[in-house]
Amino acid sequence: MEYRQLTHPYGANRVREPEGALPQAARRLDASGPLHADEVAIEVERLNIDSASFHQIVEEVGRREDAVARRIREIVDDRGKMENPVTGSGGMLSGTVGAVGPSYDGPVEVVVGDDVATLVSLTLTPLSLSQIRGVDFDSHHVAVDGRAYLPSSAPLAPMPADFDPQLALAIFDVCGAPTRLPELVDDVSSALILGAGRSGMLCAAAAREATPGSIELYGLDRDPSNLEMLSREGVLDDYRTGDATDPMGTLEQVQVMMPGDERPELVVNTCNVEQSEMASILTCRPGGTVYFFNMATDFNRAALGAEGVGQDVELVIGNGYAEGHATFALELVRQYPVLRERIERHVASSA
Amino acid sequence: MEYRQLTHPYGANRVREPEGALPQAARRLDASGPLHADEVAIEVERLNIDSASFHQIVEEVGRREDAVARRIREIVDDRGKMENPVTGSGGMLSGTVGAVGPSYDGPVEVVVGDDVATLVSLTLTPLSLSQIRGVDFDSHHVAVDGRAYLPSSAPLAPMPADFDPQLALAIFDVCGAPTRLPELVDDVSSALILGAGRSGMLCAAAAREATPGSIELYGLDRDPSNLEMLSREGVLDDYRTGDATDPMGTLEQVQVMMPGDERPELVVNTCNVEQSEMASILTCRPGGTVYFFNMATDFNRAALGAEGVGQDVELVIGNGYAEGHATFALELVRQYPVLRERIERHVASSA
Repeated sequence: MEYRQLTHPYGANRVREPEGALPQAARRLDASGPLHADEVAIEVERLNIDSASFHQIVEEVGRREDAVARRIREIVDDRGKMENPVTGSGGMLSGTVGAVGPSYDGPVEVVVGDDVATLVSLTLTPLSLSQIRGVDFDSHHVAVDGRAYLPSSAPLAPMPADFDPQLALAIFDVCGAPTRLPELVDDVSSALILGAGRSGMLCAAAAREATPGSIELYGLDRDPSNLEMLSREGVLDDYRTGDATDPMGTLEQVQVMMPGDERPELVVNTCNVEQSEMASILTCRPGGTVYFFNMATDFNRAALGAEGVGQDVELVIGNGYAEGHATFALELVRQYPVLRERIERHVASSA
Repeated sequence: MEYRQLTHPYGANRVREPEGALPQAARRLDASGPLHADEVAIEVERLNIDSASFHQIVEEVGRREDAVARRIREIVDDRGKMENPVTGSGGMLSGTVGAVGPSYDGPVEVVVGDDVATLVSLTLTPLSLSQIRGVDFDSHHVAVDGRAYLPSSAPLAPMPADFDPQLALAIFDVCGAPTRLPELVDDVSSALILGAGRSGMLCAAAAREATPGSIELYGLDRDPSNLEMLSREGVLDDYRTGDATDPMGTLEQVQVMMPGDERPELVVNTCNVEQSEMASILTCRPGGTVYFFNMATDFNRAALGAEGVGQDVELVIGNGYAEGHATFALELVRQYPVLRERIERHVASSA
C-alpha cells in the first residue's frame, strides 16, 4: 500500500488554503491520494447532507435530482470537502474502510472492509467524488462513489449490526449529548430537561440510568408525546408542556412541578430553538449548572443574560465529542426499546 | 416614601413591550416613578457607554458634544434604557442610592446616599434622564442627572473608598472572570491563561492565590509586557508571546513551555478576539476544562471545533455574575499593587 509519511494530528497537512488553518476553517482541502501514514481512507457510499445545506441547494438549483447532484459535485470538486459555501454547514458520511495507515491511531480499531460512519462534520473531511448515484429529497441522503481521508483525531464509529443504518446515524448525530450526563448528574438531586427530541430523550434516559431512583427528573417540551412516554417508562418524574423561549412561563411551570421554592440543580437545554437561554438560566438553582446542547445558543445572550438577573450558575457548552460517545448512546437505546421506537419514528417521519 | 407594592424578581414588571419579555430582551422599559417595593432607586451621575455603542453614535451624528448628547437623550427617552438600537450594547452607570424599597433584597446592603455602580448592562436598566451635563470623548463617560431603578436580582456594588472611581469601574467591568478561578483550579496541576489584559491578569492572580505553589501557571499574549510583570511577581511560571487566533502556533508555544507531551488541564481564554476557540481547545489536556471569558466566542465554533478534532474537554461559558464578584476582584487588586498599577495605566491610556 502506497502512503505518505507526512503526518499531522489534526489533518492540517490536508489544508490547501489558507496556509496554517485547520481543516474546518479552510477554504480548500487536498482530498487527493495517496493515504497519509496516520490516516484511514473510507470508500464513501452515502453523504447525509445537513438539512440547512440541502434546503439551500434545492432553493438555488431547483428540486431536480441532476441539478442538485451537479451542485454537490461542484462544491466538492472546488473545496475538497462538502461544505456548503452559503450555509457553512456540512453533514456526515458513511461507507467502508478502504485502507488504514500504519500509524493510524483513531478512536476505535478498524480494519479494511468495516462499515463505518464519520462522527465529524463534512466541513472538515477531505472528500473526492467519482460519481453521484442518487439524491433522496426526503432524507437528504446522497448515494455516491467517493473517497474520504480521516486523521486519527477525527471521531468515527463502526455501524452496529443490530441497528438499521438510518437509525444508527440518527443516534450518532446527537450521541455527544447524553454521554456527559452521568458526570453532570453526579451529586445532583434534581434535573430539568428542556426539549424532548432525540437529544432530550437520550439525556433523560442517561440521567436516570446514572442515578436510578436518587434524582428527581423533570421535562418540558412544546409537544407532550415523548414526555408522556418518558414518564410512563419511569424516566421522568414529572413533565409539562411549555415554551422554552418564554423564560417567565417556563419558570412558572417549574414552580408548579417542584414543591416549595426549589429549582433543579441541573438544567439541560436540548431545544433546537433560539432565545431559550434565559429559560434555562432562570430555572436553574443558584450554584447549579446549565448544559447547552443546542446549536442555536448564543454565547453572549447566555453570559450577559445570567449576569443581568444575577444568576450564579455554571454555563456549559455541549461538546459534540466525548470519549466513547457512539457506543454509549447505542447502548442506551438498546436498554430502552421505546426510545428506539421513538427515534425510528423520527427517522421515518423525516424520511 | 411613596412606592408601588408590585414586585417582580427580575424587573419584568418594568417591561412595556413586548409583553412577557425580560428587561434585556425588551424594546421599551418603563423608567417612571414611583419606586417599586423591591427596588432600589439610583440618582445617576455618570453613564459609562459601551465602546461599540459610543463609536456608533459618534459615527452617526459626528464628534460634537451636543449632537452625541442629543442622540443619547433620544435613545433613553424612546426606550427607557440606554440600549443602542444599532449595536444592541449598553454600558454601566454609577451614582448614589436615592431610595431603597421596603422589600429590596439586593446582593449587597445599601443605604440612601451610598456611592454605587451597577454591575449589569444598561441594556436592562430602567433609566430616565433629566439632563446631560457633558460627554467625554476619550473615556466614553457621560455626566448626567438621571434616575435608574434596579430590582433585587440586579448586581450592584458600593464604590470602594480606596480606589479612584475610574479604576474601580475598570475592575468591576471584568470582575466576573477571576471569581470562578479558585473553583476551576481546584485539583488542577497546570493552567494556561490566554490573553493578559485586565481579565487575564486578574484570572492569573486569582489562580495563583487559590493554589500557591501547587499549580504550574502559563501565559500567552500578543504583547509580552503584562506577562513579564506577572512572571516577575511569581504569578506565572512561564509565558510566550503568541497569537491565539493561530491554533497550531499556540499549540507549539505550549509544547515549548511544557515538558514531555503535557498540556494544561485548564485553559482560560480572556482574549477579546474572534477565532481563538480552537487554540483554547487544542492546547487543553483531554478531560480538562476550557473557560471562555471572551465575548467574541462563538458557541458553534467551540462545540463543533472540539468535535472536529475529537477533543473531550469541558467547555464553559464565563458567566458575568458570580456571588461576591466585585469584592473578590477588588481584594485581589489590593493584594497585587502591580496589578493595580497596570489597570490604572489601562484606564489612563483609554482615557
